[in-house]
Amino acid sequence: MPDQLFTIIEGGITAPEGFAGAAVCCGIKPQSLDLMLLASDRPAAAAVTITRNAFRAAPTFVTQEHTADGQAQAIVCNSGNANAATGQQGMDNARKMAALAAEQLGVECLDVIVCSTGKIGQQLPMDRIEGGIRQAAIGLTRDAPELLARAIMTTDTFPKMVSVAFAVGEQIVKIAGIAKGAGMICPDMATMLCFITTDLAIAPEILRTALQQAVETSFNCITVDGCMSTNDTVAILANGAAGNALIESAESAGYKEFRAALGYVTQELAKMIARDGEGATKFVEIRVSGATSWEQARCVARHIANYDLVKTSLFGEYFNWGRIAAAMGAAGPELDPEQVSIKCAGITAWSHGEPASFDEAQAKSAMQADEILIEVELGVGDGQATVWTCDLTYDYIKENVGPDVYNHS
Amino acid sequence: MPDQLFTIIEGGITAPEGFAGAAVCCGIKPQSLDLMLLASDRPAAAAVTITRNAFRAAPTFVTQEHTADGQAQAIVCNSGNANAATGQQGMDNARKMAALAAEQLGVECLDVIVCSTGKIGQQLPMDRIEGGIRQAAIGLTRDAPELLARAIMTTDTFPKMVSVAFAVGEQIVKIAGIAKGAGMICPDMATMLCFITTDLAIAPEILRTALQQAVETSFNCITVDGCMSTNDTVAILANGAAGNALIESAESAGYKEFRAALGYVTQELAKMIARDGEGATKFVEIRVSGATSWEQARCVARHIANYDLVKTSLFGEYFNWGRIAAAMGAAGPELDPEQVSIKCAGITAWSHGEPASFDEAQAKSAMQADEILIEVELGVGDGQATVWTCDLTYDYIKENVGPDVYNHS
Repeated sequence: MPDQLFTIIEGGITAPEGFAGAAVCCGIKPQSLDLMLLASDRPAAAAVTITRNAFRAAPTFVTQEHTADGQAQAIVCNSGNANAATGQQGMDNARKMAALAAEQLGVECLDVIVCSTGKIGQQLPMDRIEGGIRQAAIGLTRDAPELLARAIMTTDTFPKMVSVAFAVGEQIVKIAGIAKGAGMICPDMATMLCFITTDLAIAPEILRTALQQAVETSFNCITVDGCMSTNDTVAILANGAAGNALIESAESAGYKEFRAALGYVTQELAKMIARDGEGATKFVEIRVSGATSWEQARCVARHIANYDLVKTSLFGEYFNWGRIAAAMGAAGPELDPEQVSIKCAGITAWSHGEPASFDEAQAKSAMQADEILIEVELGVGDGQATVWTCDLTYDYIKENVGPDVYNHS
Repeated sequence: MPDQLFTIIEGGITAPEGFAGAAVCCGIKPQSLDLMLLASDRPAAAAVTITRNAFRAAPTFVTQEHTADGQAQAIVCNSGNANAATGQQGMDNARKMAALAAEQLGVECLDVIVCSTGKIGQQLPMDRIEGGIRQAAIGLTRDAPELLARAIMTTDTFPKMVSVAFAVGEQIVKIAGIAKGAGMICPDMATMLCFITTDLAIAPEILRTALQQAVETSFNCITVDGCMSTNDTVAILANGAAGNALIESAESAGYKEFRAALGYVTQELAKMIARDGEGATKFVEIRVSGATSWEQARCVARHIANYDLVKTSLFGEYFNWGRIAAAMGAAGPELDPEQVSIKCAGITAWSHGEPASFDEAQAKSAMQADEILIEVELGVGDGQATVWTCDLTYDYIKENVGPDVYNHS
């Protein structure tokens, strides 16, 4: 990211002008923040990306309907219950969440984005949700952004938030995001929850394009466990409070700065999700270059990132480049080992059709780092992509064997 | 399987007439059988299926070359070293293994199938391989079939062998197979090693078709960890010693019986591999019906079988049907939850767009069985498929974190 285009700032998700929020504990989870309300003081341009999972949750349908016109004003989100695989009652409940938030905030119901995350297949406790929304609506503030990030957490171990500022002409524009991840994370769509606010003035159509592009190279480039979720949603609200001249196309002044800032916000949040994968002890960056296209590069990187045998050897701090080769090979037959080179933790292990000689002790020691970089060169073109992931550990299994009803299913 | 078409017999891989074998400990692994030689007393019709992994091992190239003419006479296989990602020296070594076996057995080098399984990225200790082949060649016998099955094991906990007999006209024909699996098992090709012998007289072309069909519904319908291997090979030798009238097409007398017997042998071996997955505590059968096609049914079944969150909940004996729904949904957007029903361990959890009510205690108890059946009906057609898998456990990770150089990679 060309960091001269923007500056990191304080203030979190409510740093952009005109946004306020509140997080409450309404009793879906015991003694935890489990409901969040985020609102703009005026209607905002809105865009979303939604999971491609065919069993997607009720709120994703409502959110899609409510943002079809490119406008929204508020987001209501609960954790502890995904409202997925809940049939007609689940749809009714998602609509009711939107209506309750709209009523309390005095905005249009059709301008409310609804999200849920947590266990699949259980109906929402609507009395608690209703109480929570009422309580949140009277507590809206710009002073507690971290609580909003905490309210959407499930098995996350830390809240994920980023905020930056950039200039559009004379105006200072702010953009901020929060996200949750941890498990059921796979790069085949917006793969978790992420809410982004900005006070930029921008037309809905170009906002949607910008969001889709940013998601492709951020959230769609991370994986924890290869498990595509039912609820993944990335939503952005741009309320125009910064007062810049409206951005109407990619050629408009300020668009480049906005894309850079949005790219940074989404990529930083995505990396935080990979770093905080369930049970993770390592943060892993996989860079693939020399591919025929960006698509091929990402495909190879994803195969490495999702290969359980690579992930367990990373956990074991075991320099096992052969598993990286096997994972790459599984990505497709068009890959030519004769052209490939493989580097793990800075050590070249395979180069142009032959294993490379390296110092075993040095390799062993290199694997003990908390962050591991895997670099693969395919040798056939200019395509490159980076994917982020984590290791596969005993604790991933521990977190997922039992009925902890407050986490994702 | 219509069991009246064949009978289960004793005798293992050397039960068919004209086959003999030997297993030796040549020192690739410490104090374990690690090399196997299997030979027919006459040239045999031969067919193989090979992994699609682009980083496939040197012996798979040699085996492909040596069976291109539809004829082979012997199989040499070592465990403990995969001879994969070994460059030119690896290719030379694989050819040398074939040449050594041919020389010792007095058969054509071009009629020797070569296989290796074990760690990726290390050169074979050719002096030990050579000694092992010499030793095995002088010890060929029909009396120790289980040792052959043991010699190809890596992390397998039991040898996998099946043998059956069927009639073609007046002749009794025998067919037998051995296989190894345990880890790096994913249904996207022949996904492990499997050797099949039969004394049937059959033309190479129809033999190849029969093997491909049998592999599609057996080895390509199992998964342990979704990790496609570099070495997977299924090979069949049919030496004609039974003296039946040559089977030349699917219409020939005896073909139906052969297909049934071959289908049984491959499916039983495939199920043994799933049951013996690394660290597995549960054997899981996933039946998908009502799909638009067999392909769609298998795709949905595989998504369920490879979804880590389904696999961990099976390990935890946790009745979590929502994860099954999420896994199905990840299979593709054309799936309609309104038409779907989901049954796990005999209990209906989702039916036609709505969650079903069930007894929680009964569900909990049902999950304690050693074998779990997941039944999914898509409600849109007649396509059906069955996939077999196992759970994901602490022991899978334990077996794969460290440098046990004798196992796969």
